[in-house]
Amino acid sequence: MATGVTQGPIGVFDSGVGGLTVLRALRARLPHESTVYLGDTARVPYGARSAQTVVRYALNNARFLSEAAPIKLLVVACNTASAVALPALSEALEVPVIGVVEPGADAALAASRGGAVAVIGTRGTVQSGAYQRALAARAPDLEVISQPCPLFVPLAEEGWTDDAVAEAVARRYLEGLPGQGVDTLVLGCTHYPLLASTIAGVVGPGVRLVDSAAATAEAVAQRLEAAGALAPAAPAPTHQLYVTDAPEAFARVAARFLGEAPPPPIEVDIGLSA
Amino acid sequence: MATGVTQGPIGVFDSGVGGLTVLRALRARLPHESTVYLGDTARVPYGARSAQTVVRYALNNARFLSEAAPIKLLVVACNTASAVALPALSEALEVPVIGVVEPGADAALAASRGGAVAVIGTRGTVQSGAYQRALAARAPDLEVISQPCPLFVPLAEEGWTDDAVAEAVARRYLEGLPGQGVDTLVLGCTHYPLLASTIAGVVGPGVRLVDSAAATAEAVAQRLEAAGALAPAAPAPTHQLYVTDAPEAFARVAARFLGEAPPPPIEVDIGLSA
Repeated sequence: MATGVTQGPIGVFDSGVGGLTVLRALRARLPHESTVYLGDTARVPYGARSAQTVVRYALNNARFLSEAAPIKLLVVACNTASAVALPALSEALEVPVIGVVEPGADAALAASRGGAVAVIGTRGTVQSGAYQRALAARAPDLEVISQPCPLFVPLAEEGWTDDAVAEAVARRYLEGLPGQGVDTLVLGCTHYPLLASTIAGVVGPGVRLVDSAAATAEAVAQRLEAAGALAPAAPAPTHQLYVTDAPEAFARVAARFLGEAPPPPIEVDIGLSA
Repeated sequence: MATGVTQGPIGVFDSGVGGLTVLRALRARLPHESTVYLGDTARVPYGARSAQTVVRYALNNARFLSEAAPIKLLVVACNTASAVALPALSEALEVPVIGVVEPGADAALAASRGGAVAVIGTRGTVQSGAYQRALAARAPDLEVISQPCPLFVPLAEEGWTDDAVAEAVARRYLEGLPGQGVDTLVLGCTHYPLLASTIAGVVGPGVRLVDSAAATAEAVAQRLEAAGALAPAAPAPTHQLYVTDAPEAFARVAARFLGEAPPPPIEVDIGLSA
């Protein structure tokens, strides 16, 4: 990032709506920054794809965002893509690339009081081992327990986040964790913050929940500040949403993830499915 | 279908593993027939895609199967694709194309005793209105009630089909149906037969469940028989499975859908994501 590049928006992509929880944290932490978001709804969910496929999709998304706007930094607001595609993205782009895994790992270590850290996510994220590697690189002796929770994404999209069904599902996945010495739980999927209160109720007050979104927003803020690339307070920032399929379905659930009504998503063909 | 074309396999595609319940019914009804199955796991799930996208995927799948083998008939073992892509497929192919919606509608009418018919499926299938149209074409005065059940697919894939979580989800979606005069329930998604006993328990003995898979297999048998195209008892049939991504993940759950261990799925690039 060239020092003083303060005009371009922050580019953000996810496989779908989940990354809006990261966009929400970014906009809260950096209210003057413009953003451009791509939800790759034509190829969602990434969590079930092979690593090689996810890398191809991530490069395609990054290319689209770079052509759509002079982005000054790219946020990979998708745990699956952050887990496998950061090296390829960093090589392909000239702007900094920040994923959600490393900030999430930093936040987990800051939250832990010496117990084990549990990482929950899609099967793809958990099987990638990305959080496990990021945590081990920072704390080689840390005990890390991983648990895929595939039902959480459809629960969040259905809006069943604080009821008996959500609690029964969360209990099935997570009730064994406190007994295993876990004191910190990383929400390793951008959908999971919507289930945070249910998850917290199941694991109990002895387990701290870590949401990568806020940690990622902080990492972005530090990076922009260090480069002298923070946007000025004026002009007012702009926010653009793109999706690769089914904008109505996206719009229907987006507000729940973003915390406010989103701008109307614009459907784009980014080339892969031509 | 040229009369007497008895050698080629039956082609079958679905967006993923769900169509294996249809393949299972086909193999049970037509044990001498060879089959070639494509699970489009790179683009699953179709239920969340726009109609135009699903049509493009369906044509791509059909082209792959036609090139992979001299198929004598194509079964669209996917409710979403059956709902929107049959006209385009029938126009593009020279062999008969049979979807799951029309046979399912026939079976629903045969099962109903004058009450309302409920159709459950993905949001995409329900919103397409395909079952509603097929039923209305056959019985204009029939009352049809539709209910999307997005959680059922991940429950089936997770293997949580006969437990308290499945029952709680089924109850949330379906417990109002008997009170609305429903006497027949169409499982309008190929994943749902795995949840049949839980669904039956929730809706009670007064509601008959209709699984399109068996009805589709019967429709295929009649079509082949009418054309004199049934395979002879020898040589032994062959069965081939292709997927477009993540064959290990497919193989992990396939047996539950097929009812037996499947042949090893072969990963293929069918062009769309090149």
